[in-house]
Amino acid sequence: MQIDIISLFPEMFAGPLGHSIIKRARETGLLVVNVTNPRDFTVDKHHIVDDYPFGGGSGMVMKPEPVFAAVESLLTGEEAIKRKIILMCPGGQTFTQDKAKELAGFQHLVLICGHYEGVDERIRAFLADESLSIGDYVLTGGELPAMVVTDAVARMLPGVLGASDGAQQDSFYNGLLEYPQYTRPRDFRGWQAPEVLLSGDHAKIERWRRKQSLRITQKKRPELLQAADLSPYDLKLLAEIADEEDND
Amino acid sequence: MQIDIISLFPEMFAGPLGHSIIKRARETGLLVVNVTNPRDFTVDKHHIVDDYPFGGGSGMVMKPEPVFAAVESLLTGEEAIKRKIILMCPGGQTFTQDKAKELAGFQHLVLICGHYEGVDERIRAFLADESLSIGDYVLTGGELPAMVVTDAVARMLPGVLGASDGAQQDSFYNGLLEYPQYTRPRDFRGWQAPEVLLSGDHAKIERWRRKQSLRITQKKRPELLQAADLSPYDLKLLAEIADEEDND
Repeated sequence: MQIDIISLFPEMFAGPLGHSIIKRARETGLLVVNVTNPRDFTVDKHHIVDDYPFGGGSGMVMKPEPVFAAVESLLTGEEAIKRKIILMCPGGQTFTQDKAKELAGFQHLVLICGHYEGVDERIRAFLADESLSIGDYVLTGGELPAMVVTDAVARMLPGVLGASDGAQQDSFYNGLLEYPQYTRPRDFRGWQAPEVLLSGDHAKIERWRRKQSLRITQKKRPELLQAADLSPYDLKLLAEIADEEDND
Repeated sequence: MQIDIISLFPEMFAGPLGHSIIKRARETGLLVVNVTNPRDFTVDKHHIVDDYPFGGGSGMVMKPEPVFAAVESLLTGEEAIKRKIILMCPGGQTFTQDKAKELAGFQHLVLICGHYEGVDERIRAFLADESLSIGDYVLTGGELPAMVVTDAVARMLPGVLGASDGAQQDSFYNGLLEYPQYTRPRDFRGWQAPEVLLSGDHAKIERWRRKQSLRITQKKRPELLQAADLSPYDLKLLAEIADEEDND
Protein backbone atom coordinates (compact mmCIF):
# COMPACT_ATOMS: atom_id res chain seq x y z
CA MET A 1 0.00 0.00 0.00
CA GLN A 2 1.03 3.56 -0.65
CA ILE A 3 -0.06 6.42 1.60
CA ASP A 4 0.56 9.98 0.41
CA ILE A 5 0.09 12.72 2.95
CA ILE A 6 -0.53 16.26 1.68
CA SER A 7 0.73 18.67 4.33
CA LEU A 8 2.18 22.15 4.68
CA PHE A 9 4.29 20.84 7.58
CA PRO A 10 6.17 17.75 6.33
CA GLU A 11 8.77 18.04 9.09
CA MET A 12 6.12 17.11 11.67
CA PHE A 13 6.05 13.55 10.33
CA ALA A 14 9.64 12.32 10.65
CA GLY A 15 9.29 11.16 14.27
CA PRO A 16 5.89 9.49 14.11
CA LEU A 17 6.50 7.83 10.73
CA GLY A 18 9.93 6.58 11.83
CA HIS A 19 8.62 4.53 14.74
CA SER A 20 6.54 1.61 15.80
CA ILE A 21 4.23 -0.21 13.44
CA ILE A 22 4.55 2.34 10.67
CA LYS A 23 8.33 1.93 10.71
CA ARG A 24 8.02 -1.85 10.61
CA ALA A 25 5.48 -1.75 7.78
CA ARG A 26 7.75 0.53 5.77
CA GLU A 27 10.83 -1.62 6.38
CA THR A 28 9.07 -4.75 5.20
CA GLY A 29 8.03 -2.95 2.01
CA LEU A 30 4.33 -3.49 2.77
CA LEU A 31 3.79 0.25 3.16
CA VAL A 32 5.24 3.28 1.42
CA VAL A 33 4.50 6.63 3.06
CA ASN A 34 5.41 9.99 1.51
CA VAL A 35 4.60 13.54 2.49
CA THR A 36 3.99 16.09 -0.28
CA ASN A 37 3.93 19.83 0.42
CA PRO A 38 1.37 21.91 -1.51
CA ARG A 39 3.77 24.84 -1.15
CA ASP A 40 6.02 23.11 -3.70
CA PHE A 41 3.15 23.39 -6.18
CA THR A 42 2.62 27.13 -5.96
CA VAL A 43 3.49 29.16 -9.04
CA ASP A 44 3.73 32.63 -7.49
CA LYS A 45 6.92 34.22 -6.22
CA HIS A 46 5.86 34.12 -2.55
CA HIS A 47 4.60 30.51 -2.59
CA ILE A 48 1.28 31.51 -1.12
CA VAL A 49 -0.87 28.61 0.08
CA ASP A 50 -3.54 30.44 2.06
CA ASP A 51 -5.71 33.52 1.68
CA TYR A 52 -8.49 35.46 3.47
CA PRO A 53 -11.93 33.86 3.53
CA PHE A 54 -14.52 35.29 1.15
CA GLY A 55 -17.24 36.94 3.20
CA GLY A 56 -14.85 37.95 5.97
CA GLY A 57 -14.14 36.33 9.30
CA SER A 58 -11.07 35.36 11.22
CA GLY A 59 -8.29 33.03 10.16
CA MET A 60 -6.95 32.00 6.79
CA VAL A 61 -8.20 29.41 4.31
CA MET A 62 -6.07 26.98 2.29
CA LYS A 63 -6.24 27.89 -1.40
CA PRO A 64 -7.48 25.25 -3.83
CA GLU A 65 -4.83 25.41 -6.58
CA PRO A 66 -1.73 24.17 -4.68
CA VAL A 67 -3.67 21.30 -3.07
CA PHE A 68 -5.24 20.18 -6.35
CA ALA A 69 -1.83 20.36 -8.04
CA ALA A 70 -0.11 18.42 -5.25
CA VAL A 71 -2.70 15.64 -5.29
CA GLU A 72 -2.83 15.48 -9.08
CA SER A 73 0.96 15.11 -9.23
CA LEU A 74 0.50 11.79 -7.42
CA LEU A 75 -2.17 10.43 -9.72
CA THR A 76 -0.16 10.06 -12.88
CA GLY A 77 0.28 6.60 -14.28
CA GLU A 78 -1.99 3.68 -13.73
CA GLU A 79 -5.55 4.71 -12.91
CA ALA A 80 -6.93 1.22 -12.37
CA ILE A 81 -5.57 0.96 -8.86
CA LYS A 82 -7.92 1.08 -5.89
CA ARG A 83 -7.46 4.58 -4.52
CA LYS A 84 -9.15 6.91 -2.08
CA ILE A 85 -8.52 10.63 -1.58
CA ILE A 86 -9.46 11.69 1.94
CA LEU A 87 -9.70 15.13 3.46
CA MET A 88 -8.86 15.13 7.17
CA CYS A 89 -11.26 17.61 8.74
CA PRO A 90 -13.45 17.96 11.84
CA GLY A 91 -16.65 17.85 9.80
CA GLY A 92 -15.87 14.46 8.28
CA GLN A 93 -17.21 11.02 9.05
CA THR A 94 -15.84 9.71 12.37
CA PHE A 95 -12.89 7.34 11.93
CA THR A 96 -13.37 3.90 13.52
CA GLN A 97 -11.69 0.51 13.54
CA ASP A 98 -14.12 -0.67 10.84
CA LYS A 99 -13.02 2.23 8.69
CA ALA A 100 -9.35 1.30 9.29
CA LYS A 101 -10.10 -2.22 8.08
CA GLU A 102 -11.90 -0.88 5.01
CA LEU A 103 -9.06 1.50 4.12
CA ALA A 104 -6.50 -1.30 4.51
CA GLY A 105 -8.11 -2.83 1.42
CA PHE A 106 -7.04 0.08 -0.80
CA GLN A 107 -3.78 0.25 -2.75
CA HIS A 108 -3.33 4.00 -2.52
CA LEU A 109 -4.56 6.48 0.06
CA VAL A 110 -4.08 10.23 -0.26
CA LEU A 111 -4.64 12.04 3.06
CA ILE A 112 -5.07 15.82 2.74
CA CYS A 113 -4.28 17.72 5.95
CA GLY A 114 -6.39 20.83 6.40
CA HIS A 115 -4.83 23.69 8.31
CA TYR A 116 -5.46 27.29 9.32
CA GLU A 117 -9.12 28.11 9.66
CA GLY A 118 -10.06 25.53 7.04
CA VAL A 119 -9.67 24.54 3.41
CA ASP A 120 -11.44 25.94 0.38
CA GLU A 121 -14.70 24.03 0.01
CA ARG A 122 -13.90 23.08 -3.59
CA ILE A 123 -11.17 20.75 -2.24
CA ARG A 124 -13.78 18.83 -0.27
CA ALA A 125 -16.40 18.96 -3.02
CA PHE A 126 -14.35 18.21 -6.14
CA LEU A 127 -11.04 16.63 -5.10
CA ALA A 128 -11.66 14.47 -2.02
CA ASP A 129 -13.65 11.24 -2.20
CA GLU A 130 -14.58 11.61 1.44
CA SER A 131 -13.78 13.49 4.65
CA LEU A 132 -12.67 11.88 7.89
CA SER A 133 -12.47 13.15 11.47
CA ILE A 134 -10.67 11.25 14.23
CA GLY A 135 -12.95 12.55 16.98
CA ASP A 136 -15.08 15.39 18.29
CA TYR A 137 -12.38 17.84 19.28
CA VAL A 138 -10.62 20.74 17.58
CA LEU A 139 -7.00 20.36 16.48
CA THR A 140 -4.63 22.81 14.82
CA GLY A 141 -4.50 20.85 11.58
CA GLY A 142 -4.97 17.52 9.90
CA GLU A 143 -1.40 16.34 10.53
CA LEU A 144 -2.02 14.42 13.78
CA PRO A 145 -5.22 12.90 12.32
CA ALA A 146 -3.30 11.75 9.23
CA MET A 147 -0.72 10.07 11.48
CA VAL A 148 -3.49 8.37 13.45
CA VAL A 149 -5.14 7.02 10.29
CA THR A 150 -1.77 5.87 8.92
CA ASP A 151 -0.95 4.01 12.14
CA ALA A 152 -4.37 2.35 12.44
CA VAL A 153 -4.42 1.32 8.77
CA ALA A 154 -0.80 0.07 8.80
CA ARG A 155 -1.68 -2.33 11.64
CA MET A 156 -4.44 -3.84 9.53
CA LEU A 157 -2.27 -4.59 6.47
CA PRO A 158 -1.82 -8.34 6.08
CA GLY A 159 1.67 -9.33 7.21
CA VAL A 160 2.51 -6.19 9.16
CA LEU A 161 1.63 -7.55 12.58
CA GLY A 162 3.14 -10.94 13.31
CA ALA A 163 0.84 -13.68 14.59
CA SER A 164 2.28 -13.00 18.03
CA ASP A 165 1.22 -9.37 18.07
CA GLY A 166 -2.36 -10.27 18.57
CA ALA A 167 -4.18 -7.43 16.80
CA GLN A 168 -7.14 -9.76 17.20
CA GLN A 169 -7.11 -9.28 20.94
CA ASP A 170 -6.85 -5.52 20.90
CA SER A 171 -9.64 -3.35 22.16
CA PHE A 172 -12.25 -2.69 19.45
CA TYR A 173 -10.97 -5.41 17.17
CA ASN A 174 -13.64 -7.74 18.48
CA GLY A 175 -15.95 -4.98 19.64
CA LEU A 176 -15.17 -5.17 23.37
CA LEU A 177 -12.68 -3.35 25.56
CA GLU A 178 -9.60 -5.34 26.53
CA TYR A 179 -9.28 -7.28 29.78
CA PRO A 180 -6.69 -6.08 32.34
CA GLN A 181 -3.10 -7.18 31.82
CA TYR A 182 -0.56 -7.90 34.57
CA THR A 183 3.13 -8.64 34.49
CA ARG A 184 5.91 -9.04 37.03
CA PRO A 185 6.28 -8.31 39.86
CA ARG A 186 3.46 -10.39 41.25
CA ASP A 187 3.33 -8.15 44.30
CA PHE A 188 3.97 -4.49 43.56
CA ARG A 189 3.81 -2.31 46.68
CA GLY A 190 1.30 -4.72 48.18
CA TRP A 191 -0.96 -4.71 45.10
CA GLN A 192 -1.23 -8.31 43.92
CA ALA A 193 -1.71 -9.68 40.42
CA PRO A 194 -4.90 -11.82 40.38
CA GLU A 195 -4.34 -15.43 41.53
CA VAL A 196 -6.13 -16.91 38.53
CA LEU A 197 -3.49 -15.56 36.11
CA LEU A 198 -0.82 -17.50 37.99
CA SER A 199 -2.84 -20.73 38.16
CA GLY A 200 -1.62 -22.23 34.88
CA ASP A 201 -5.22 -23.27 34.17
CA HIS A 202 -5.72 -21.90 30.67
CA ALA A 203 -9.45 -22.49 30.45
CA LYS A 204 -9.96 -20.66 33.73
CA ILE A 205 -7.72 -17.81 32.58
CA GLU A 206 -9.63 -17.46 29.31
CA ARG A 207 -12.91 -17.41 31.19
CA TRP A 208 -11.66 -14.75 33.62
CA ARG A 209 -10.38 -12.58 30.78
CA ARG A 210 -13.58 -12.78 28.75
CA LYS A 211 -15.63 -11.98 31.83
CA GLN A 212 -13.41 -8.99 32.62
CA SER A 213 -13.74 -7.73 29.03
CA LEU A 214 -17.51 -7.98 29.27
CA ARG A 215 -17.60 -6.36 32.71
CA ILE A 216 -15.35 -3.43 31.72
CA THR A 217 -17.19 -2.83 28.45
CA GLN A 218 -20.56 -2.92 30.19
CA LYS A 219 -19.38 -0.45 32.78
CA LYS A 220 -17.44 1.99 30.61
CA ARG A 221 -18.91 1.72 27.11
CA PRO A 222 -22.31 0.02 27.30
CA GLU A 223 -23.10 1.08 23.70
CA LEU A 224 -20.23 -1.11 22.47
CA LEU A 225 -21.71 -4.11 24.28
CA GLN A 226 -25.07 -3.45 22.62
CA ALA A 227 -23.40 -3.53 19.21
CA ALA A 228 -21.11 -6.52 19.89
CA ASP A 229 -21.71 -9.99 18.52
CA LEU A 230 -22.16 -11.92 21.77
CA SER A 231 -22.18 -15.70 22.08
CA PRO A 232 -24.49 -17.70 24.41
CA TYR A 233 -21.37 -18.16 26.59
CA ASP A 234 -20.95 -14.36 26.77
CA LEU A 235 -24.58 -14.00 27.84
CA LYS A 236 -24.01 -16.56 30.59
CA LEU A 237 -20.98 -14.60 31.83
CA LEU A 238 -23.02 -11.36 31.74
CA ALA A 239 -25.72 -13.06 33.83
CA GLU A 240 -23.05 -14.04 36.38
CA ILE A 241 -21.79 -10.45 36.45
CA ALA A 242 -25.32 -9.17 37.10
CA ASP A 243 -25.76 -11.69 39.94
CA GLU A 244 -22.45 -10.71 41.52
CA GLU A 245 -23.34 -7.04 41.42
CA ASP A 246 -26.74 -7.69 42.96
CA ASN A 247 -24.93 -9.34 45.87
CA ASP A 248 -22.57 -6.41 46.41
CA MET B 1 0.28 24.92 32.29
CA GLN B 2 2.75 22.09 32.37
CA ILE B 3 2.19 18.89 30.40
CA ASP B 4 4.47 15.93 31.10
CA ILE B 5 4.30 13.05 28.68
CA ILE B 6 5.54 9.64 29.84
CA SER B 7 6.73 7.72 26.79
CA LEU B 8 9.20 5.05 25.78
CA PHE B 9 9.64 6.88 22.45
CA PRO B 10 10.47 10.52 23.25
CA GLU B 11 11.99 11.07 19.80
CA MET B 12 8.52 10.75 18.25
CA PHE B 13 7.52 14.08 19.77
CA ALA B 14 10.07 16.57 18.43
CA GLY B 15 8.20 17.26 15.17
CA PRO B 16 4.66 17.52 16.50
CA LEU B 17 5.61 19.50 19.62
CA GLY B 18 7.76 21.89 17.58
CA HIS B 19 4.92 23.07 15.36
CA SER B 20 1.67 24.89 15.17
CA ILE B 21 -0.31 25.86 18.25
CA ILE B 22 1.83 23.81 20.61
CA LYS B 23 4.93 25.63 19.42
CA ARG B 24 3.25 28.99 19.84
CA ALA B 25 1.96 28.12 23.31
CA ARG B 26 5.43 27.02 24.37
CA GLU B 27 7.09 30.14 22.97
CA THR B 28 4.72 32.43 24.84
CA GLY B 29 5.50 30.58 28.05
CA LEU B 30 1.86 29.62 28.55
CA LEU B 31 2.68 25.95 28.12
CA VAL B 32 5.66 23.82 29.12
CA VAL B 33 5.80 20.34 27.58
CA ASN B 34 8.35 17.70 28.54
CA VAL B 35 8.71 14.05 27.66
CA THR B 36 10.00 11.64 30.30
CA ASN B 37 11.16 8.12 29.43
CA PRO B 38 10.33 5.37 31.92
CA ARG B 39 13.43 3.56 30.65
CA ASP B 40 15.52 6.17 32.47
CA PHE B 41 13.92 4.99 35.71
CA THR B 42 14.80 1.30 35.44
CA VAL B 43 17.30 -0.03 37.95
CA ASP B 44 18.36 -3.23 36.18
CA LYS B 45 21.34 -3.55 33.87
CA HIS B 46 19.23 -4.12 30.73
CA HIS B 47 16.77 -1.26 31.39
CA ILE B 48 13.79 -3.54 30.99
CA VAL B 49 10.45 -1.77 30.69
CA ASP B 50 8.21 -4.61 29.54
CA ASP B 51 7.60 -8.25 30.39
CA TYR B 52 5.38 -11.21 29.45
CA PRO B 53 1.75 -11.08 30.58
CA PHE B 54 0.79 -13.21 33.56
CA GLY B 55 -1.56 -15.92 32.35
CA GLY B 56 0.02 -16.10 28.90
CA GLY B 57 -1.01 -14.55 25.64
CA SER B 58 0.69 -12.62 22.91
CA GLY B 59 2.55 -9.35 23.19
CA MET B 60 4.33 -7.65 26.02
CA VAL B 61 3.04 -5.58 28.94
CA MET B 62 4.60 -2.41 30.33
CA LYS B 63 5.96 -3.06 33.82
CA PRO B 64 4.63 -0.96 36.68
CA GLU B 65 7.86 0.08 38.44
CA PRO B 66 9.48 2.31 35.76
CA VAL B 67 6.20 4.10 35.02
CA PHE B 68 5.44 4.74 38.69
CA ALA B 69 9.01 5.98 39.21
CA ALA B 70 8.88 8.25 36.14
CA VAL B 71 5.57 9.83 37.17
CA GLU B 72 6.60 10.17 40.82
CA SER B 73 9.79 11.98 39.79
CA LEU B 74 7.56 14.75 38.42
CA LEU B 75 5.43 15.12 41.53
CA THR B 76 8.02 16.44 43.92
CA GLY B 77 7.53 19.90 45.34
CA GLU B 78 4.26 21.66 45.67
CA GLU B 79 1.31 19.31 45.97
CA ALA B 80 -1.39 21.98 46.10
CA ILE B 81 -1.41 22.50 42.35
CA LYS B 82 -4.34 21.29 40.28
CA ARG B 83 -3.03 18.16 38.62
CA LYS B 84 -4.38 15.20 36.70
CA ILE B 85 -2.57 11.98 35.79
CA ILE B 86 -4.08 10.42 32.68
CA LEU B 87 -3.44 7.05 31.10
CA MET B 88 -3.85 7.14 27.30
CA CYS B 89 -5.48 3.82 26.42
CA PRO B 90 -8.22 2.48 24.15
CA GLY B 91 -10.40 1.47 27.09
CA GLY B 92 -10.56 4.99 28.51
CA GLN B 93 -13.27 7.61 28.41
CA THR B 94 -13.61 9.12 24.93
CA PHE B 95 -11.82 12.47 24.57
CA THR B 96 -14.05 15.34 23.42
CA GLN B 97 -13.89 19.11 23.10
CA ASP B 98 -15.63 19.45 26.47
CA LYS B 99 -12.88 17.34 28.01
CA ALA B 100 -10.25 19.54 26.33
CA LYS B 101 -11.86 22.59 27.94
CA GLU B 102 -11.96 20.86 31.33
CA LEU B 103 -8.30 19.81 31.14
CA ALA B 104 -7.27 23.34 30.13
CA GLY B 105 -8.29 24.35 33.67
CA PHE B 106 -5.55 22.22 35.25
CA GLN B 107 -2.06 23.45 36.07
CA HIS B 108 -0.29 20.15 35.49
CA LEU B 109 -1.22 17.21 33.26
CA VAL B 110 0.73 13.96 33.18
CA LEU B 111 -0.09 11.86 30.09
CA ILE B 112 1.08 8.24 30.29
CA CYS B 113 1.49 6.57 26.89
CA GLY B 114 0.70 2.88 26.91
CA HIS B 115 2.56 0.71 24.43
CA TYR B 116 3.07 -2.91 23.45
CA GLU B 117 0.08 -5.10 24.23
CA GLY B 118 -0.89 -2.90 27.17
CA VAL B 119 0.18 -1.61 30.56
CA ASP B 120 0.14 -3.38 33.88
CA GLU B 121 -3.30 -2.83 35.37
CA ARG B 122 -1.84 -1.40 38.58
CA ILE B 123 -0.79 1.69 36.60
CA ARG B 124 -4.41 2.31 35.68
CA ALA B 125 -5.77 1.39 39.09
CA PHE B 126 -3.31 3.06 41.47
CA LEU B 127 -1.35 5.72 39.54
CA ALA B 128 -3.68 7.28 36.95
CA ASP B 129 -6.60 9.49 37.95
CA GLU B 130 -8.41 8.56 34.78
CA SER B 131 -7.99 6.93 31.35
CA LEU B 132 -8.63 8.63 28.02
CA SER B 133 -9.10 7.30 24.50
CA ILE B 134 -9.13 9.58 21.45
CA GLY B 135 -11.46 7.32 19.47
CA ASP B 136 -12.65 3.80 18.70
CA TYR B 137 -9.66 2.52 16.76
CA VAL B 138 -6.50 0.61 17.63
CA LEU B 139 -3.15 2.43 17.59
CA THR B 140 0.36 1.18 18.26
CA GLY B 141 0.74 3.26 21.40
CA GLY B 142 -0.42 6.25 23.37
CA GLU B 143 2.02 8.65 21.72
CA LEU B 144 -0.25 9.98 18.97
CA PRO B 145 -3.15 10.25 21.44
CA ALA B 146 -0.96 12.25 23.86
CA MET B 147 -0.06 14.63 21.01
CA VAL B 148 -3.74 15.01 20.12
CA VAL B 149 -4.69 15.83 23.72
CA THR B 150 -1.77 18.27 24.04
CA ASP B 151 -2.78 20.09 20.84
CA ALA B 152 -6.48 20.28 21.73
CA VAL B 153 -5.78 21.46 25.29
CA ALA B 154 -3.12 24.00 24.20
CA ARG B 155 -5.68 25.67 21.94
CA MET B 156 -8.00 26.15 24.89
CA LEU B 157 -5.46 27.86 27.17
CA PRO B 158 -6.38 31.52 27.62
CA GLY B 159 -4.08 33.69 25.51
CA VAL B 160 -2.74 30.97 23.21
CA LEU B 161 -5.08 31.67 20.32
CA GLY B 162 -5.29 35.33 19.41
CA ALA B 163 -8.72 36.91 19.07
CA SER B 164 -8.25 36.59 15.33
CA ASP B 165 -7.82 32.84 15.39
CA GLY B 166 -11.45 32.28 16.06
CA ALA B 167 -11.40 29.11 18.15
CA GLN B 168 -14.97 30.08 18.87
CA GLN B 169 -15.99 29.39 15.28
CA ASP B 170 -14.28 26.05 14.98
CA SER B 171 -16.28 22.89 14.52
CA PHE B 172 -17.45 21.43 17.85
CA TYR B 173 -16.65 24.58 19.77
CA ASN B 174 -20.29 25.64 19.55
CA GLY B 175 -21.60 22.14 19.00
CA LEU B 176 -22.16 22.38 15.23
CA LEU B 177 -19.98 21.53 12.24
CA GLU B 178 -18.38 24.48 10.51
CA TYR B 179 -19.86 26.20 7.45
CA PRO B 180 -17.92 25.92 4.15
CA GLN B 181 -15.06 28.35 3.59
CA TYR B 182 -13.99 29.80 0.25
CA THR B 183 -11.03 31.91 -0.76
CA ARG B 184 -9.57 33.20 -4.04
CA PRO B 185 -9.86 32.48 -6.89
CA ARG B 186 -13.55 33.23 -7.17
CA ASP B 187 -13.75 30.93 -10.18
CA PHE B 188 -11.57 27.84 -9.91
CA ARG B 189 -11.86 25.58 -12.95
CA GLY B 190 -15.42 26.72 -13.43
CA TRP B 191 -16.42 26.07 -9.80
CA GLN B 192 -17.66 29.35 -8.37
CA ALA B 193 -17.50 30.64 -4.82
CA PRO B 194 -21.08 31.41 -3.64
CA GLU B 195 -22.31 34.89 -4.67
CA VAL B 196 -23.50 35.73 -1.17
CA LEU B 197 -19.96 35.66 0.22
CA LEU B 198 -18.94 38.36 -2.26
CA SER B 199 -21.98 40.54 -1.58
CA GLY B 200 -20.47 42.58 1.24
CA ASP B 201 -23.77 42.21 3.11
CA HIS B 202 -22.60 40.98 6.48
CA ALA B 203 -26.01 40.12 7.89
CA LYS B 204 -26.78 38.03 4.81
CA ILE B 205 -23.37 36.32 5.02
CA GLU B 206 -23.88 35.48 8.70
CA ARG B 207 -27.31 34.06 7.93
CA TRP B 208 -25.95 31.95 5.06
CA ARG B 209 -23.12 30.60 7.22
CA ARG B 210 -25.35 29.70 10.14
CA LYS B 211 -27.80 27.98 7.81
CA GLN B 212 -24.97 26.03 6.16
CA SER B 213 -23.67 24.95 9.59
CA LEU B 214 -27.11 23.73 10.57
CA ARG B 215 -27.64 21.99 7.23
CA ILE B 216 -24.26 20.21 7.26
CA THR B 217 -24.61 19.15 10.90
CA GLN B 218 -28.13 17.85 10.31
CA LYS B 219 -26.97 15.86 7.32
CA LYS B 220 -23.68 14.47 8.62
CA ARG B 221 -23.96 14.39 12.40
CA PRO B 222 -27.63 14.64 13.40
CA GLU B 223 -26.79 13.59 16.97
CA LEU B 224 -24.73 16.78 17.39
CA LEU B 225 -27.72 18.87 16.34
CA GLN B 226 -29.86 17.08 18.92
CA ALA B 227 -27.39 18.01 21.63
CA ALA B 228 -26.75 21.59 20.46
CA ASP B 229 -28.17 24.64 22.19
CA LEU B 230 -30.31 26.07 19.37
CA SER B 231 -31.89 29.52 19.36
CA PRO B 232 -35.38 30.35 17.98
CA TYR B 233 -33.52 31.82 14.98
CA ASP B 234 -31.75 28.46 14.41
CA LEU B 235 -35.11 26.67 14.52
CA LYS B 236 -36.45 29.09 11.91
CA LEU B 237 -33.45 28.35 9.66
CA LEU B 238 -33.98 24.61 10.15
CA ALA B 239 -37.62 25.00 9.13
CA GLU B 240 -36.47 26.77 5.95
CA ILE B 241 -34.03 23.93 5.25
CA ALA B 242 -36.81 21.36 5.67
CA ASP B 243 -39.03 23.35 3.27
CA GLU B 244 -36.28 23.60 0.68
CA GLU B 245 -35.62 19.89 0.82
CA ASP B 246 -39.31 19.09 0.46
CA ASN B 247 -39.24 21.08 -2.75
CA ASP B 248 -36.27 19.24 -4.19
